[in-house]
Amino acid sequence: MNPSKRVQAMQASPIRKLIPLSLAAKKRGIHVYHLNIGQPDIPTPKEFFEAIRDFGGKVLKYQLSGGDPDLIHAIKTYFERENIFFDEEDIIITNGGSEALSFALQAICDVGENVLVPEPFYTNYNGFTHQVGVFVKPITTKAEGNFHLPAKEEIVKMIDKNTKAILYSNPGNPTGVVYTEAEIRLLCDIAKEYDLMIISDEVYRKMTFDGKVSISLGTFQDVADRAVIIESVSKRFSSCGARIGSIQSKNKVLMKEVLKLAQARLSVSTIDQVGATALYALDEEYVLSIRDEYKDRRDAVLAGLAKIDGVEYRIPSGAFYCIVTLPVEDAEDFCAWLLSDFSYEKETIMLAPVRDFYVNKELGKKQVRIAYVLGASQMSRSMDLLKIALEQYTNK
Amino acid sequence: MNPSKRVQAMQASPIRKLIPLSLAAKKRGIHVYHLNIGQPDIPTPKEFFEAIRDFGGKVLKYQLSGGDPDLIHAIKTYFERENIFFDEEDIIITNGGSEALSFALQAICDVGENVLVPEPFYTNYNGFTHQVGVFVKPITTKAEGNFHLPAKEEIVKMIDKNTKAILYSNPGNPTGVVYTEAEIRLLCDIAKEYDLMIISDEVYRKMTFDGKVSISLGTFQDVADRAVIIESVSKRFSSCGARIGSIQSKNKVLMKEVLKLAQARLSVSTIDQVGATALYALDEEYVLSIRDEYKDRRDAVLAGLAKIDGVEYRIPSGAFYCIVTLPVEDAEDFCAWLLSDFSYEKETIMLAPVRDFYVNKELGKKQVRIAYVLGASQMSRSMDLLKIALEQYTNK
Repeated sequence: MNPSKRVQAMQASPIRKLIPLSLAAKKRGIHVYHLNIGQPDIPTPKEFFEAIRDFGGKVLKYQLSGGDPDLIHAIKTYFERENIFFDEEDIIITNGGSEALSFALQAICDVGENVLVPEPFYTNYNGFTHQVGVFVKPITTKAEGNFHLPAKEEIVKMIDKNTKAILYSNPGNPTGVVYTEAEIRLLCDIAKEYDLMIISDEVYRKMTFDGKVSISLGTFQDVADRAVIIESVSKRFSSCGARIGSIQSKNKVLMKEVLKLAQARLSVSTIDQVGATALYALDEEYVLSIRDEYKDRRDAVLAGLAKIDGVEYRIPSGAFYCIVTLPVEDAEDFCAWLLSDFSYEKETIMLAPVRDFYVNKELGKKQVRIAYVLGASQMSRSMDLLKIALEQYTNK
Repeated sequence: MNPSKRVQAMQASPIRKLIPLSLAAKKRGIHVYHLNIGQPDIPTPKEFFEAIRDFGGKVLKYQLSGGDPDLIHAIKTYFERENIFFDEEDIIITNGGSEALSFALQAICDVGENVLVPEPFYTNYNGFTHQVGVFVKPITTKAEGNFHLPAKEEIVKMIDKNTKAILYSNPGNPTGVVYTEAEIRLLCDIAKEYDLMIISDEVYRKMTFDGKVSISLGTFQDVADRAVIIESVSKRFSSCGARIGSIQSKNKVLMKEVLKLAQARLSVSTIDQVGATALYALDEEYVLSIRDEYKDRRDAVLAGLAKIDGVEYRIPSGAFYCIVTLPVEDAEDFCAWLLSDFSYEKETIMLAPVRDFYVNKELGKKQVRIAYVLGASQMSRSMDLLKIALEQYTNK
């Protein structure tokens, strides 16, 4: 039996592929700080658990394919508070932001078509696109420019006759960049000029620091019919395991096709939608409180990095990631070594090599992504371990 | 914006596409008996709800992409009781049986390749295949033969160089057929002779009547490396809304690729996996008790149909569906009329037109699928309504 070429072409997740090494390290009694994955340790709001405990149904029925009407209403109301106005039929609930992205790509692109994506980008975009035969055309952004967008001509030169959309995440994973209004305006203008859709992955909305503000694509009225917003409870509400996301668009033609995709997989978990409905009713205070917590964690990372020779990094403005260029030839080898050969006082760290967050893999060869998803003291300790590890690794 | 051809080619679900008409009927104050969808009204075992109430985690984390180890262990143990022996790594948890099927098709077939499927078949197989560019080559089965398989030569004549697998459901949706050991043996022999994979959708396992026994593909040792078993808690445990299924195969090459697909969507709901673990620990007594309930419901349907002139049907042996050929020209028009024009004492019924369960759509034009998912008295009443409706419709 030969598996299909389409799955063989999919790369294993760089965030998850070193898991066997981390499991082996744990078996040797080593504590592993998981900075490889965007899995926060912040408690999920108790309202989620209360809502599912109070679920009164006797039969756990299929929910409607498009989603629980109560959850859709809660999301609509949430966006209204952000001055973004969707109708109920503009919102479809998905299995996490992942399925929302996959549905958008499938409904917009045929096999062989492509989407523009600023790189480095969330590596799972590779999975979603490969799986459905769509190509990523990278708009390379650089650490020197703190991962902001290049000039218009650098972007439009990547557009060809098979380009159907621009996809970006803002605040950015893995870069921590927060786009300015002018940058999003530029992408909107390009989309109009070249007749492209725009998919804005906003799962880190509001998670910004130092007075930066994340601007939603939903506030750009002139591209309402081109705009697709990806939303999720995973990060802002520390509810990754709920697998509740949603796709928002005022383009009725698109949403009609997305609903067909939703019907093909029947429905999303009934119980998790009940829990997520409670999350969207939470006051903004909750999101602001965890934002402050992430800022402390980021600052702990930056303080730790400042003490390490030879590393290069920029101050991330949003989300909870930081890209660091290491004084090594091959960051993936270093990440594997951290798990298989290194430990200090029975502890080590797990990082995500960034090479596979690029189409141009050479660009990310020396980079790692640090997810600052643990408390500030654990992040400080992790940076101390990184310093010690780099000294050992570069001297071996 | 033109949606992709791939989504445009997907048909709307025949099980769900009449929902707007049913919603409108309800708004007019009409009670609709939902016999269109395999959504049982049997209470979900209380063990599911107890397990999720007792979930002690403070952070709702991503589960492992391959699934909750406790659930995998519970499924392994469940299969052992059925004398089918999987290792933990032979089992991957999915978003319902739907995702398990989709993963199997994606991992086995490239765009343009095909799978053999006895028709009529579960209509969502159309969705899963179209979405990923795979074709269904139908093995036509007939009401006269109670939907059992045709002779070997009828099956193998459909195989071409792009055929990669045989896919069937047993017990069968929408036919209620339960394949004999000789029939499954025949499919296994064909698979070996033509080097095909075999995907057995067994989500209705054990739901059989009149002494019939559903035989799992997992008991055919000589095709262990070709066999893929699709499993779900939806039907046997009346937990459709949990969206917990699984894919089982001893083919390590296949499962390695399926894990990549699983990693691309990160994970399945953490909480629902906790609930499903409790379901698999339930004694077989539970499944046998609901099987008796479904037999009563089936018998109520058969008693009702016996009183209606001009309908043709066979006695279904398993699952909870019955295909009925109606004395109408276009069953889909009749199904729409039931919702938009008919009512009797403020009640009507919703049925699934069967045309779209066929590749050869002409074959199913006069057929409907009745899901006997409501209690026996409601099924009796529904058949009375069907009789009255047919009289009105054929005289209009």
